[in-house]
Amino acid sequence: MAPFITKFDPYAPADFVVDKEAGTRSPARLEKIAIVGSGSWGTALARVAAINAATLEGFDDEVRMWVREREVPGKGKLTDIINTTHQNERYLPNVELPDNLIAVSDVKEVVKGATLLLFVVPHQFLPNVLHQLAKPGVIDPKARAISAIKGVEVDLRDDGADIYTYPYVIEKALNIPCSALGGANIALDVGKGEFCETTIGVPSPKDAALWHAVFDGPAFRVHPIEDVAGVSLSGALKNVVAMAAGFVDGMGLGGNTKAAILRHGLIEMSTFTLEFFPTASPLTFSHHSAGMADLITTSFGGRNRKCAEAFVRAKMEGNPKTFAQLEEELLNGQKLQGIATAREVFLFLQARKRLEGYPLFDKVYRISFEEMDPKRMFEDL
Amino acid sequence: MAPFITKFDPYAPADFVVDKEAGTRSPARLEKIAIVGSGSWGTALARVAAINAATLEGFDDEVRMWVREREVPGKGKLTDIINTTHQNERYLPNVELPDNLIAVSDVKEVVKGATLLLFVVPHQFLPNVLHQLAKPGVIDPKARAISAIKGVEVDLRDDGADIYTYPYVIEKALNIPCSALGGANIALDVGKGEFCETTIGVPSPKDAALWHAVFDGPAFRVHPIEDVAGVSLSGALKNVVAMAAGFVDGMGLGGNTKAAILRHGLIEMSTFTLEFFPTASPLTFSHHSAGMADLITTSFGGRNRKCAEAFVRAKMEGNPKTFAQLEEELLNGQKLQGIATAREVFLFLQARKRLEGYPLFDKVYRISFEEMDPKRMFEDL
Repeated sequence: MAPFITKFDPYAPADFVVDKEAGTRSPARLEKIAIVGSGSWGTALARVAAINAATLEGFDDEVRMWVREREVPGKGKLTDIINTTHQNERYLPNVELPDNLIAVSDVKEVVKGATLLLFVVPHQFLPNVLHQLAKPGVIDPKARAISAIKGVEVDLRDDGADIYTYPYVIEKALNIPCSALGGANIALDVGKGEFCETTIGVPSPKDAALWHAVFDGPAFRVHPIEDVAGVSLSGALKNVVAMAAGFVDGMGLGGNTKAAILRHGLIEMSTFTLEFFPTASPLTFSHHSAGMADLITTSFGGRNRKCAEAFVRAKMEGNPKTFAQLEEELLNGQKLQGIATAREVFLFLQARKRLEGYPLFDKVYRISFEEMDPKRMFEDL
Repeated sequence: MAPFITKFDPYAPADFVVDKEAGTRSPARLEKIAIVGSGSWGTALARVAAINAATLEGFDDEVRMWVREREVPGKGKLTDIINTTHQNERYLPNVELPDNLIAVSDVKEVVKGATLLLFVVPHQFLPNVLHQLAKPGVIDPKARAISAIKGVEVDLRDDGADIYTYPYVIEKALNIPCSALGGANIALDVGKGEFCETTIGVPSPKDAALWHAVFDGPAFRVHPIEDVAGVSLSGALKNVVAMAAGFVDGMGLGGNTKAAILRHGLIEMSTFTLEFFPTASPLTFSHHSAGMADLITTSFGGRNRKCAEAFVRAKMEGNPKTFAQLEEELLNGQKLQGIATAREVFLFLQARKRLEGYPLFDKVYRISFEEMDPKRMFEDL
């Protein structure tokens, strides 16, 4: 499947000043990448971007990554450790990070002078980050953003509800264009340089060219498409379906059942997106890596699947646990995005009186929060 | 996703004779089901059909299943064993078969009086079976067939090649309409009654109603669609992609890589089918169980994946084995359909000079038969 936007000028990342007499050209300004976030996925993407920045014409070599500072007992400050060992031991162990990737604890320092901002924080931290960055003079007004945040923002009102993607939230807060970066990407495998693909949803060919240049490589293939909302929604909703896949695993059911759940899940993801974001494309789900491939990866290997399996196992063994407990026990400080998204989507659909159109999303919520028997997941499908 | 054909008359399987005075009605003739094949998949489907036949109005209770007779040392004839123990110990162990499913060794006896014929033999046995059944008086000329055979038939000529689906081959040989039954279905899980789905491609609403009645149940959901060729081709081609998935596993690569291969594979499956069978529908691949769901099941759990993984492992350990050897070692007498299909599809595309449109199909063949390094699978994708 050819991506929607395939041709781009490899020199588009920077405008060039050409000196015809001297026969030279030099970039009008250097593109500078900043990574806002340093979890496992953020660190894996930072590694890819820093490797590319070091060789790309028109790019500043230095890539800064925001790390929330803390003392590691007996070892010193976390930023110092990352900048000395060139590893993010906690979130991406055993993966060497390039020297030109610099951990910085002040988010305003991270984005200073940056023209390309990757947002990859857990969504609950985003409002505070945007609040800081939205102040005048903090970011370059000509900068561009891309969001790898998995989730949706839902506003509940007395008479209904609205739903927003994070690229939209970022765009409105900072008044700069924001793209979306999808999967399929298990962070550790990306860190190891295994062959994989990602889809980016971009609002313009210029954004396509820039973000393609930042992330594309021989083992990390980037396909730009125009569907920003679809890429962002797919990244959020796939975590809800991955929880359903985890419930299947927890019940000890086999591959047929799991595949049936993924099929229904992908259809609900696509239908939901097209119902509430009518400019999105169904091909994002059926053909692109951000759709079916990301769903498969996440439903066989991701953390949402893992916790959902443990949730059902614990329940069936008569020792039920909440997702907050499982997050604590299994995720080493990482956040479970699927459970938050399952709740947001459920409340939104309930407020819009559209739950009956999404039986799988409905059941994932009720199994997680209302003690519904997981065996009832197959009803109404 | 609603199937294309959802509404059917539950009494459609048989025409009824109504006696208005007596206030009764009785079927004009009973539908009678015959299962031509008794491997693991055939036995699993026979079990489902026999359970339904026993309760459906208008159906003969008895369902006959063709079993190639042989002596089981110390135990007697295989048909007697199946009919006494109500288990097919070799191909579907630990699954109880209904009493009204009768194993019969003479294929002509199996189809005698049958109105509904399921073909589920390994494709290499089909010509001989059709040769016997095509003789006058052997099958009911008003019978209908459905094929669950995974493969394609390719005719190579000096100046090109032709490709046929098995429903087409059966239809032409027997002069009766033939539908296609897809996945996703790991036989043993179907035997255990786990929730799963199947897609049937049917040439008419009448066929849809009949075959839906034969196979549909609470745990085995049957969705009829009109795309006979698509369902049949998907069932064949998914085994080639599952081999690629097995190569990924054999190389020790992770979920991102496998998902990327499945994405490219599904696109090649769909593109191939639409190129050479233009009446097929892309939705069969992107939305229906016979497409993406069957591919997922097969690529994580099926026998083609398993042997392909072992093939690469053996090669990397410096102890290469052929697929014939692996079939012998790993499959307990079952046949590997993916490898035959990979070869047929390669030879067909080569003869049609279209290999460059299908880099994954091309590489699966070359890795399997031409000692290509499996690591080269990602080139050209």
